[in-house]
Amino acid sequence: MVKARVTVTLKNGVLDPQGKAIGAALASLDFEGVENVRQGKVFDLELATDDRQAAKDELNAMCEKLLANTVIEDYTVEIE
Amino acid sequence: MVKARVTVTLKNGVLDPQGKAIGAALASLDFEGVENVRQGKVFDLELATDDRQAAKDELNAMCEKLLANTVIEDYTVEIE
Repeated sequence: MVKARVTVTLKNGVLDPQGKAIGAALASLDFEGVENVRQGKVFDLELATDDRQAAKDELNAMCEKLLANTVIEDYTVEIE
Repeated sequence: MVKARVTVTLKNGVLDPQGKAIGAALASLDFEGVENVRQGKVFDLELATDDRQAAKDELNAMCEKLLANTVIEDYTVEIE
C-alpha cells in the first residue's frame, strides 16, 4: 500500500477570489496583517501497490487527467 | 513577512462523499488500485510580521475561528 498526498494550488498570477474573500473575512474577525491568502486543494490517496515509482507515475497521470486543471493550477505529489 | 501553509483535512471516521466521488471518477478513467481518496483544503498565507511565534499563534486562532470546522476537521500549520 502506498499513501500519497497531492496538493493542487493556483498558478501565480491567477486570480483567487476565494482567497480574497477569506482574507476579507479574517480582517473582519480582527486578524491584522494578513497580506495575502490563496486557497488550494489537497488529496490524500491510498494506492494498492508497493511500487513507489509506478505509484508516482500514476498519481501524476491522475493529476493531469482529473485532480488538477493544469491550465491554471500546479500540483505536487508526495509519497509517504 | 511570514509565509505559512495551513492544511485542513477531515478527521478520521468522518465520511467524505467528495473523496468517494473522486475515487469513482478515477476508476472510470481506468486508474486501478485506488483504495481511498480524501479531499481537504490548503491555504497559503502571507502575514506582515517577522515574529514567527506570534504568527503561529495567530494562524492557530484563524483556524479555530474560520479556516477549519474543528468539529469535523483537523488542521496543521507550517511556517516557511
